[in-house]
Amino acid sequence: MVWQSQAQKAKDILHASIPTQWLAPAHLLPPAHQKDVTDFPRTSGLLTDRELSITDMSATALVSGMAAGLLTAEEVVVAFLKRAVLAHQLTNFATEFMADKAIARAKELDAYRKKTGKLVGPLHGVPISVKEHIEIAGLTCNAGFVAWAGEIPDKDALLLQYLANAGAVFHVRTNQPQSLMHLCCNNNLTGQTVNPFNRTLTPGGSSGGEGASMGFKCAPLGIGTDIGGSIRAPAAFCGAYGFRPTIHRNPCTGLKIPGSGNNESIPGVVGPMASQSVEDLELFQRVVIDQEPWDEETSLAPVPWKRVVPNRNMTIGIMWDDGLFSPPPYGRCERLALTRDAKAKLQAAGIKVVDWEPYRHDHGWDIVSNLYFPDAAAGQRALLDQSGEPTLPLTEWAYSYSRSTPLTIPENHMLNQQRDVYRDEYHALMKTRGVDFILCPTYAGVAAVLGESHYWNYTAIWNILDHPAVVFPSGLVVDTALDAADERYVPRGEVDAREWKKYTGPERYEGAPIGLQFVGKHFKDEETLAAAAVVERILKGEDDVMSKL
Amino acid sequence: MVWQSQAQKAKDILHASIPTQWLAPAHLLPPAHQKDVTDFPRTSGLLTDRELSITDMSATALVSGMAAGLLTAEEVVVAFLKRAVLAHQLTNFATEFMADKAIARAKELDAYRKKTGKLVGPLHGVPISVKEHIEIAGLTCNAGFVAWAGEIPDKDALLLQYLANAGAVFHVRTNQPQSLMHLCCNNNLTGQTVNPFNRTLTPGGSSGGEGASMGFKCAPLGIGTDIGGSIRAPAAFCGAYGFRPTIHRNPCTGLKIPGSGNNESIPGVVGPMASQSVEDLELFQRVVIDQEPWDEETSLAPVPWKRVVPNRNMTIGIMWDDGLFSPPPYGRCERLALTRDAKAKLQAAGIKVVDWEPYRHDHGWDIVSNLYFPDAAAGQRALLDQSGEPTLPLTEWAYSYSRSTPLTIPENHMLNQQRDVYRDEYHALMKTRGVDFILCPTYAGVAAVLGESHYWNYTAIWNILDHPAVVFPSGLVVDTALDAADERYVPRGEVDAREWKKYTGPERYEGAPIGLQFVGKHFKDEETLAAAAVVERILKGEDDVMSKL
Repeated sequence: MVWQSQAQKAKDILHASIPTQWLAPAHLLPPAHQKDVTDFPRTSGLLTDRELSITDMSATALVSGMAAGLLTAEEVVVAFLKRAVLAHQLTNFATEFMADKAIARAKELDAYRKKTGKLVGPLHGVPISVKEHIEIAGLTCNAGFVAWAGEIPDKDALLLQYLANAGAVFHVRTNQPQSLMHLCCNNNLTGQTVNPFNRTLTPGGSSGGEGASMGFKCAPLGIGTDIGGSIRAPAAFCGAYGFRPTIHRNPCTGLKIPGSGNNESIPGVVGPMASQSVEDLELFQRVVIDQEPWDEETSLAPVPWKRVVPNRNMTIGIMWDDGLFSPPPYGRCERLALTRDAKAKLQAAGIKVVDWEPYRHDHGWDIVSNLYFPDAAAGQRALLDQSGEPTLPLTEWAYSYSRSTPLTIPENHMLNQQRDVYRDEYHALMKTRGVDFILCPTYAGVAAVLGESHYWNYTAIWNILDHPAVVFPSGLVVDTALDAADERYVPRGEVDAREWKKYTGPERYEGAPIGLQFVGKHFKDEETLAAAAVVERILKGEDDVMSKL
Repeated sequence: MVWQSQAQKAKDILHASIPTQWLAPAHLLPPAHQKDVTDFPRTSGLLTDRELSITDMSATALVSGMAAGLLTAEEVVVAFLKRAVLAHQLTNFATEFMADKAIARAKELDAYRKKTGKLVGPLHGVPISVKEHIEIAGLTCNAGFVAWAGEIPDKDALLLQYLANAGAVFHVRTNQPQSLMHLCCNNNLTGQTVNPFNRTLTPGGSSGGEGASMGFKCAPLGIGTDIGGSIRAPAAFCGAYGFRPTIHRNPCTGLKIPGSGNNESIPGVVGPMASQSVEDLELFQRVVIDQEPWDEETSLAPVPWKRVVPNRNMTIGIMWDDGLFSPPPYGRCERLALTRDAKAKLQAAGIKVVDWEPYRHDHGWDIVSNLYFPDAAAGQRALLDQSGEPTLPLTEWAYSYSRSTPLTIPENHMLNQQRDVYRDEYHALMKTRGVDFILCPTYAGVAAVLGESHYWNYTAIWNILDHPAVVFPSGLVVDTALDAADERYVPRGEVDAREWKKYTGPERYEGAPIGLQFVGKHFKDEETLAAAAVVERILKGEDDVMSKL
């Protein structure tokens, strides 16, 4: 197999799928050196005011609009498609457009509403972008591997079936890195995706195409997957929203995953991303779990989606850093000063806030990193060898997390055991300390420079602990006037020094959004989303949030 | 280590713990050749009529009696202790008595009731026997291995804590086989337990001491563990009740398990056994799960225990055999004729009954048998080598189920994957066929002759499928007049021929109880118990069961 010809298949599929009628003419495109391109849909004049308004709406608002007859599903999906085409020209985020199918589906939905006066379901006409390795019947699915450029599944992933039942419209598939294991988004198929807020930076990964999709508002909702931060890093890097649910809540049947089968020691999860609100994340979860997916995928926990109101007496622990690596100023739970401000804001709103001292995050990392590739990545390497495609540096970086020789079964069992004990201890500690939620950074900083996303443990720790975690934007971006490097800082160790050196100054990260991570207890997905929505509003400066509950 | 001296520790502990005041004098004991000894408590005159009545009561009835002030916890535990001492003389079922502690606890409970007028909880004063490998603080825990004869845990198993909270009294610990992996009950520590209904037969295993305890009514409730039938075989072999819950419902923290940690590919479960009723099994489950064990042991599913009423429109599929091995007449869902009769009885009661054609039980066995010892039993063998104790034939038998070389991690992952697909397919098939429950044999026959329990797949299949399964007695025993060998039978294959040859005639199994297995869907534990209670009453000939619901 000559890998380039195989990779060309993916390029050809992408190229053929682009709705060329909506491409921006070359002369209108911003210059290559322009970092922030998020305003292009407006400044270019290529979208109408109505289209700009539509693409600024949440899924919840769009469905209301369609229910009221103020919007049609067709105009909605066209608006988002137009925006997605521009996003692709500027960030290379898509792997395949599904414009004709999406428009046809939107027309059906409109016809249904016209005929019955009703919506098909709670996601009627909501465009959703889909990470490429989530299988769609009849379309190739490569999961970031050149060897798989010709693989065609015969069924839609189970999750997509539930979303479609509820009226969702899938209009674009999005990019992911080789191996699915970078917090970055580059591969040998359709190449590198960049961050729409600063094109010298990564949109994050592995759901990097989704990050760009949400950041550029190519859809109100997207679907990512997360085994170490792959939903949350892209959400944070792109000023968007993302949710990593507890394992065994969302159906994973029909995700194309490299490897030999089910690595249940550290399963990945699939979950929502959103461009507008925490409420849309909740909507997505509710729609899926209300359909009782455990009745198809029996490994899921039969736990219905609860309707909860935020707990007025919640206690939030702020974890300033993970005890191992101290994020540079811009990443210390957003700008350090802001976080202190955040604490004050939360307290002013009547929420009890304490400091959260991390518990053995190094131990958690030892466990999770060794479980990622228990076969020493032999399965993944074989897949790379199959096509002969070059192994990208961040792929090697990820493989190097795990031991270079395969684990034995007893070693794997011992890690499972350590994991379970660690989970029980962490949970007990939250109870003992009376902490319901932990507010913390999402990453060692904001969006990394392309190829530099090395530090996973602000997100991976919640994978091994299996806590639900929401990412939402703080509303702030890196500011060259405010975020000077702290010259006096003394790194705590090798990793800290490595990450610290990347922050030569704010210019390198100009315009990068600052995202926050809000973590709940195991299986408290509903409570975590409900509380996150409140916290976001308080931090944005909304008044009387708690008293209005 | 000289293994005999190490094993002597276990014998000494047992011996020193026996409340000698209740031992039957030698001249009263039945002769060694007497097979059925279940009537000895009555015929010997060693228990009073009141004690005999007490030991015939269910946990539910005992608690009612204590609530009404008709019984004291002390007299209850003394009655069961007296019976247990006789049982031990006749069957060798105990590993350690805890008489003083149990009586002291019963006195506390009585004092509490006297003072407050209330019960401590829903298991107030209920004696529960406990399989040895369930840890109790300060007492040795060997799990059937001589090497562990001196191991002393410092905490009670989590399950015991919940039961104690509810008022349970633990009075005796019970025997298990070497390796915990026989459907039989022999080890090099305290030796072999025999079946109280026929002492030439096994009480089953691995919770064989519990089987004898329930069959002889040494407690209304017992605790067993089950990874391939270890609760259900002893329950069936001893004319008792047992329940294998769905995985991740009951807490397993504090079970002493050989091996290297958490083999989550095929986890064992802990669950109740009962001497009197299905209702007692439900009581046990309700008491434990109402305490939300997932808030301590976070790997449990946070699924509350539902209060359900039996579904009047249920459909039961009868699985006559597993398609691989045809049980001899006495084991074909009890006596073949009876099963046909059972079908008629259920139909007469208004229940829809269909035949259940088993789906790929050979495939299920391939998966589960390879997952039992993915390290080729190296961990278990090392533990045997550590003491130098001889490996018993049924231990080798179990080890030989798995491959003789360790699985690689990818092979293990592939088996996990096959398991998940098989579960989904089986579940889908039950839905497609409209079958809610499956009524089937528990074993290839009734209680095996000592050392002959070779065929696991009537129970193990539900472990790999992770379906809840109840065992209850049919009320029938092997009858030398009715259960002649079927000379015309032509075995379907090697395994079938092996098992068939064991049935030279009913004399070999005289008096052995015939148990039935009633299987529900994954996580439908509550519904399965509720339906099993109804089915048992119908099969016992109670009238108008359905109309009284």
